[in-house]
Amino acid sequence: MSTLIRNGLVINATGSHAADVLISGEHIAALVTPGFEVQADEVIDAAGKYVIPGGIDAHTHMEMPFGGTQSADTFETGTTAAAWGGTTTIVDFAVQPKGSSLLSTLDKWHSKADGNCAVDYGFHMIISDVNDESLKEMDSCIAAGVNSFKMFMAYPGVFYATDGEILRAMQKARETGATIMMHAENGIAIDQLVAQALASGLGDPVQHGLTRPPELEGEATSRAIQLAKVTGSPLYIVHLSAAQALDAVTAARDTGQNVFAETCPQYLYLSLEDLARPGFEGAKFVASPPLRPKEHQSSLWRGLRTNDLSVVSTDHCPFCFKDQKQLGVGDFSKIPNGMPGVEHRVDLLHQGVVKGEITRERWVEIVSTTPARMFGMYPRKGVIAPGADADVVIYDPTASQTISAETHHMAVDYSAYEGFEVTGRVDTVFSRGRKVIADGAYHGSTGHGRFVSRDLNQYLV
Amino acid sequence: MSTLIRNGLVINATGSHAADVLISGEHIAALVTPGFEVQADEVIDAAGKYVIPGGIDAHTHMEMPFGGTQSADTFETGTTAAAWGGTTTIVDFAVQPKGSSLLSTLDKWHSKADGNCAVDYGFHMIISDVNDESLKEMDSCIAAGVNSFKMFMAYPGVFYATDGEILRAMQKARETGATIMMHAENGIAIDQLVAQALASGLGDPVQHGLTRPPELEGEATSRAIQLAKVTGSPLYIVHLSAAQALDAVTAARDTGQNVFAETCPQYLYLSLEDLARPGFEGAKFVASPPLRPKEHQSSLWRGLRTNDLSVVSTDHCPFCFKDQKQLGVGDFSKIPNGMPGVEHRVDLLHQGVVKGEITRERWVEIVSTTPARMFGMYPRKGVIAPGADADVVIYDPTASQTISAETHHMAVDYSAYEGFEVTGRVDTVFSRGRKVIADGAYHGSTGHGRFVSRDLNQYLV
Amino acid sequence: MSTLIRNGLVINATGSHAADVLISGEHIAALVTPGFEVQADEVIDAAGKYVIPGGIDAHTHMEMPFGGTQSADTFETGTTAAAWGGTTTIVDFAVQPKGSSLLSTLDKWHSKADGNCAVDYGFHMIISDVNDESLKEMDSCIAAGVNSFKMFMAYPGVFYATDGEILRAMQKARETGATIMMHAENGIAIDQLVAQALASGLGDPVQHGLTRPPELEGEATSRAIQLAKVTGSPLYIVHLSAAQALDAVTAARDTGQNVFAETCPQYLYLSLEDLARPGFEGAKFVASPPLRPKEHQSSLWRGLRTNDLSVVSTDHCPFCFKDQKQLGVGDFSKIPNGMPGVEHRVDLLHQGVVKGEITRERWVEIVSTTPARMFGMYPRKGVIAPGADADVVIYDPTASQTISAETHHMAVDYSAYEGFEVTGRVDTVFSRGRKVIADGAYHGSTGHGRFVSRDLNQYLV
Amino acid sequence: MSTLIRNGLVINATGSHAADVLISGEHIAALVTPGFEVQADEVIDAAGKYVIPGGIDAHTHMEMPFGGTQSADTFETGTTAAAWGGTTTIVDFAVQPKGSSLLSTLDKWHSKADGNCAVDYGFHMIISDVNDESLKEMDSCIAAGVNSFKMFMAYPGVFYATDGEILRAMQKARETGATIMMHAENGIAIDQLVAQALASGLGDPVQHGLTRPPELEGEATSRAIQLAKVTGSPLYIVHLSAAQALDAVTAARDTGQNVFAETCPQYLYLSLEDLARPGFEGAKFVASPPLRPKEHQSSLWRGLRTNDLSVVSTDHCPFCFKDQKQLGVGDFSKIPNGMPGVEHRVDLLHQGVVKGEITRERWVEIVSTTPARMFGMYPRKGVIAPGADADVVIYDPTASQTISAETHHMAVDYSAYEGFEVTGRVDTVFSRGRKVIADGAYHGSTGHGRFVSRDLNQYLV
Repeated sequence: MSTLIRNGLVINATGSHAADVLISGEHIAALVTPGFEVQADEVIDAAGKYVIPGGIDAHTHMEMPFGGTQSADTFETGTTAAAWGGTTTIVDFAVQPKGSSLLSTLDKWHSKADGNCAVDYGFHMIISDVNDESLKEMDSCIAAGVNSFKMFMAYPGVFYATDGEILRAMQKARETGATIMMHAENGIAIDQLVAQALASGLGDPVQHGLTRPPELEGEATSRAIQLAKVTGSPLYIVHLSAAQALDAVTAARDTGQNVFAETCPQYLYLSLEDLARPGFEGAKFVASPPLRPKEHQSSLWRGLRTNDLSVVSTDHCPFCFKDQKQLGVGDFSKIPNGMPGVEHRVDLLHQGVVKGEITRERWVEIVSTTPARMFGMYPRKGVIAPGADADVVIYDPTASQTISAETHHMAVDYSAYEGFEVTGRVDTVFSRGRKVIADGAYHGSTGHGRFVSRDLNQYLV
Repeated sequence: MSTLIRNGLVINATGSHAADVLISGEHIAALVTPGFEVQADEVIDAAGKYVIPGGIDAHTHMEMPFGGTQSADTFETGTTAAAWGGTTTIVDFAVQPKGSSLLSTLDKWHSKADGNCAVDYGFHMIISDVNDESLKEMDSCIAAGVNSFKMFMAYPGVFYATDGEILRAMQKARETGATIMMHAENGIAIDQLVAQALASGLGDPVQHGLTRPPELEGEATSRAIQLAKVTGSPLYIVHLSAAQALDAVTAARDTGQNVFAETCPQYLYLSLEDLARPGFEGAKFVASPPLRPKEHQSSLWRGLRTNDLSVVSTDHCPFCFKDQKQLGVGDFSKIPNGMPGVEHRVDLLHQGVVKGEITRERWVEIVSTTPARMFGMYPRKGVIAPGADADVVIYDPTASQTISAETHHMAVDYSAYEGFEVTGRVDTVFSRGRKVIADGAYHGSTGHGRFVSRDLNQYLV
Repeated sequence: MSTLIRNGLVINATGSHAADVLISGEHIAALVTPGFEVQADEVIDAAGKYVIPGGIDAHTHMEMPFGGTQSADTFETGTTAAAWGGTTTIVDFAVQPKGSSLLSTLDKWHSKADGNCAVDYGFHMIISDVNDESLKEMDSCIAAGVNSFKMFMAYPGVFYATDGEILRAMQKARETGATIMMHAENGIAIDQLVAQALASGLGDPVQHGLTRPPELEGEATSRAIQLAKVTGSPLYIVHLSAAQALDAVTAARDTGQNVFAETCPQYLYLSLEDLARPGFEGAKFVASPPLRPKEHQSSLWRGLRTNDLSVVSTDHCPFCFKDQKQLGVGDFSKIPNGMPGVEHRVDLLHQGVVKGEITRERWVEIVSTTPARMFGMYPRKGVIAPGADADVVIYDPTASQTISAETHHMAVDYSAYEGFEVTGRVDTVFSRGRKVIADGAYHGSTGHGRFVSRDLNQYLV
Repeated sequence: MSTLIRNGLVINATGSHAADVLISGEHIAALVTPGFEVQADEVIDAAGKYVIPGGIDAHTHMEMPFGGTQSADTFETGTTAAAWGGTTTIVDFAVQPKGSSLLSTLDKWHSKADGNCAVDYGFHMIISDVNDESLKEMDSCIAAGVNSFKMFMAYPGVFYATDGEILRAMQKARETGATIMMHAENGIAIDQLVAQALASGLGDPVQHGLTRPPELEGEATSRAIQLAKVTGSPLYIVHLSAAQALDAVTAARDTGQNVFAETCPQYLYLSLEDLARPGFEGAKFVASPPLRPKEHQSSLWRGLRTNDLSVVSTDHCPFCFKDQKQLGVGDFSKIPNGMPGVEHRVDLLHQGVVKGEITRERWVEIVSTTPARMFGMYPRKGVIAPGADADVVIYDPTASQTISAETHHMAVDYSAYEGFEVTGRVDTVFSRGRKVIADGAYHGSTGHGRFVSRDLNQYLV
């Protein structure tokens, strides 16, 4: 089975050119100048549309265990929603429970995802328990295609790792070339502020934001950078939200240190004001780090332009407002942390193109090419080039749509972007050559998505 | 006529993949997965070799008038040497003499190059005379495909522009989207130091370096950046040589300002020690800014990694040691400023890959893709993609060679890199589909090279 | 004749203590613990009041030639007004006309001031003409007690010095230990903007501010700092007004470079809004650098706290609104540059104490001790200590007053601070032991003030 | 009893002047111009000598409990040695054991010092146990004249405070105006490195330095600064040793934050090379933070000039080489941390004057005036002024001496500065009017020294 996409504008990270794209089986077989004769079973006319590599969301949490519940999207619903939004690869997090092994954790996550995904997926590993055994297991994880390990400077008693544990994991990362991903907030200090707020009777969702000041994200980011410097480890800051943290990343990158950072659409488009919405409405926006005052947004857009922010992922971790978010009525610290978003990342970032914040090439780079290179999937993913997986999106840059929980495909009862009017829309999506979205309908199938064994970060020198 | 390059590793700026490249006529017609059947008149086996877009040297001075003489390479010899070195496009400088018009200058340069070039070429314009007329002519230059204008903060009485003149030209650049290129050295202060050295009887070539301290390059760079900020003009710092200047560029880029910079191979590989070679030998290395103490080199390599330095050009401006450089025996200020280099840029930068300073993708980005995007030639140049000009280099990454004036093809009687042993070598070069270098011989022809009308800088948002 | 000031709180730069101060003749003879028996001809009770060293205004322009006119205060009226305001020493500027010698200039200024001053005075020298002769004369100036030399990066055609001239003067300063004072604005670029505004028919006073953007003060400040670094010269930035310039000074001082800066009360309390007052009212506030947008003020106060701003001087250069300022109706570039202020500096800065911006010790340091040390008059001036000149101010920190042209003593027909309500007031002023202000009356005499031959900057290491 | 010191040069922090100093009873009664007639029981001729306020060593540990032993100097021997060296006030640390109260701790330290000191003394409080009770007790400590509280980011399991505990103590400091003093090293990460070194069989003293990299002091310093920013607490970094930490302090001070820092003579004069002396000799130099590579020294001297380092204290904490230091043979982690130094601080810093690193006024400021102001003792201490305690040192700036354990007065069997030749020597020392050192002999008496109840930091605005 072959498909020829004609007359589109192929956009890669470095530039755009008119070219026809031939998909053959699961791969891109050829790029040819428009008009160059090529045989194909099917021909699609993409005139007036963009042809871009499928989006890669490097930070999702599908069916993540949390308290007695779990995040609302399964791998099935979550990856289907991803496909709807032009994302053809997710990298989800396997979560090591304290006391268990990394490899058994990985097995568990494989069994959750295997046979259930609409698009391809990879895994990062969350290390909750740093010890001689788990450090050794990092080698096995890497051999198994999982070479990025997330740690937390927040959530004491849950995921929190001490600076000593971080140091040890980073030494191992240095040795193996793996990347340490960091949730950088000073959770020890924050927990004190949280306890003080609650003791003062301040329980509303907005307190979630007020008890996690941006300075404490900046601090933790700096600390992670120094630990990475001492050990020589690559470092990737996840969900960076505060200007202070960006400043720390910028300073480190200026010295050539292997430090990278992602932000998320919610930090670009939403703010502390949303957390402060009346009643319990703010709970919909509870995630960590918290939404920040609006003035941080322009710093983040600047970071995307300067490449001090290299990636935009969603940190998709949906909890329904009903029953789940509501666990925290009266006590913001009990609100499940997380927001839905995997479906709208590509569209939301396209608004940056529409508003002149970034070029369309940078858009493709941020949502696809860089995550592919950062997490060892390029040139299999992240580029329109012969030999690559045929993860291809035909994107209509002039269509308009309105985001709403009523129309989205994520298994969650609200949208953080309810009512947002958006210019641009996914038209057709191929996942490894299979047309999964077309003509406003889903044509994929559960289990089509395969595990992507990943190589090392390609930005390291 | 069509050619298929098989089995090579195609390297673009974002990554590398195995692909066959079909050249048809002057363009790349298709990229296909290896083995995908394609008809071609000729097939070249590039197994074990790199297939990269032809190098673009964005800073050359062929047959540039200087005093009563001119730089030693003509457009013919210079572009032929470029081809030998894997550079398939140069951007040379048309030099407005005070009192004459920009358009007549451009005509003059067209007539020098037209029919004489082995590979393609474009022009930047040097503005020596800022006035109402020349500012208006900038529009015509842009219409004529010349949209980058170089000014000098050095060389009072020759090219020197006052800050007021720079301001005016930058206002025009802001208005048109053109880029101002800046030779950033505080020539007014430097001339004082030069006069003092000569008055003290210090006339050796090394004084050229000592009288142009790096702080005065840093200062001028900062000044140019502030003037660009006040006016909103894009700014491109040419031949950046000093850590202080790089710091200024880095700080500006961190804020998202449209500031870019290039360095040159001589600043990466040579140093003040070469200027201080015994006798008059140092004269071979006299160029401005001067070669710097060695410790600046690691800063420059870091800048290439962090992208605070985006481009490496040669500032190729050769003067023969005999008769030309020797004009300055006893008075370093009379030594013609300039060094040869157009032939060895691609090879010299490849040493950065060999030594682990940069990745091979970054090498391609620096020597080809970024200059193409920066100077409005992408995707016609700077990428291996269908529709692009078939400027293609097959590069053998493991061959070795020794640089020497005895073997080089530039019309100058010395090499600045005499005796350098280099890993990697240009194997085959196509210029717009024509094989100009192959099997160790030149197969091109004078006049094959055409003028490239350029668009605006593609990095601007 | 001796006087004992009892029961006051003696404030010096490092702290405050209760002490009685014995003045004998022109000097302070003793500081004793309150109650310690001391004989004196007169005893003044200063209970509840501060006893502070007389203010030193290091930047005034009395009867300064300007166009066909001159600044409105003579040495007599200006120094009398200074005395009223608790300032017992001024350092005025002798202005070298192009083509004349420094020493003849100094003679001329001596003859203006000699016999006409109410309080002591020193001179800085403005070098308008840098040449072998004037550089040599710097030695003679230093021998004559004038060791600070002001240069201008603004006012092309009048005072403007090229970077080469600045370099030469700085080399001489390095050699002699003299301090270069710099008016740091990029006048070459500014003049372009001024011409453009006028050509566009924009002639109102506010244009004076809009055509001198703060970036161009920041730029010139950076440039002066780099030239000082290259030469090793001490540098003192006069009348710093912009956050950008302060950032440059801060960065230099962090490295330990001998760079110092003053600001003026007008930049702390007035803003671009005053320049934009309706009608021609804004002309009252035309000085260079111009008043800045309000947000710069907090940076300047911070600089005073961090000591990146060490001194507050007035740049007192009064021109009457009538006849003088009015020369620029319709053409802001013709408005004489300058504002009155010598009388209110001590009071205005005291408001910083009242509002908690600075401590009272820092107030004394800024208005008296630091200028004394910076300009080589300490411990003769700037401190309450035995042996010092008895320049002593008894200050009532709780009195209140309203500033107004109707009540001030400067020979100018408006006040820039008209209607300002101020807490604190000068009670009694001694100049070299003579009571010149007391009981709300002036008791001094013209000619009492003497020239102060100054030593080198005492902050240099 | 009264004493008149004639003909000396009185040096205060802002400048020097010839003056006679009258001591009457415990206080300075008068400063008079030389020759002004004053009655006195005794007259001392200080011609050719300096008269300076007695040194204040704000960081000592006398008879500090450590393991089963204690630091080698008692309050008696330590304060006697201080007097010999021109230090007339020490501020020692009361050490709260976990589980006990601050006030009982203070009582205990009072009972150690009371009646045993040769010169005056104050206390800081080390908080090892942050809880509701101890936070409340901070008020009582402040009422008792102890308003500076030291915490540790190092020494887990001993003094280590978590970031949450630091936050709480800082909130209290903000509320009360107290100052938090911080031992800023990331002890959690360091302990990991220490364990790894020991596990690798690396037990020599030099490992003490190698396992505590300067980045981890820089990190902790930054973290403390951010926590202080979030809470609004004044912060004083003790014994700063690394350029990285100084950079963090400088950046914070540039913003006007109330952050201060001290360094110690050992970091100015000794280095990692001393820790690496052959055999077990390096143990003499084991203190935390460790001695740093030599290149840090010039940064520290620069910090003293720029006032980013405001104080030099000794961190005097002597352990004898025999029996005490030797506890760590083969295991550097068992070497008692600390070095002797209280006796030589004034002399060692005077070498900075001799070598041109600082002025003599800055010397006085660093060793006396600033600690007095920082720790609320000014103008009782830290200045030669009427009303001040007669803590006066007559210092001979031209005498020379050699430092040696054979001649020093500290109760420790080695000197860290053995054989150092020093220019300048303490001649005569008064402590509250009593001559304790004169004519090369000790004339003081145990129990003369009194507790100094201190006020708040006077640098806060």
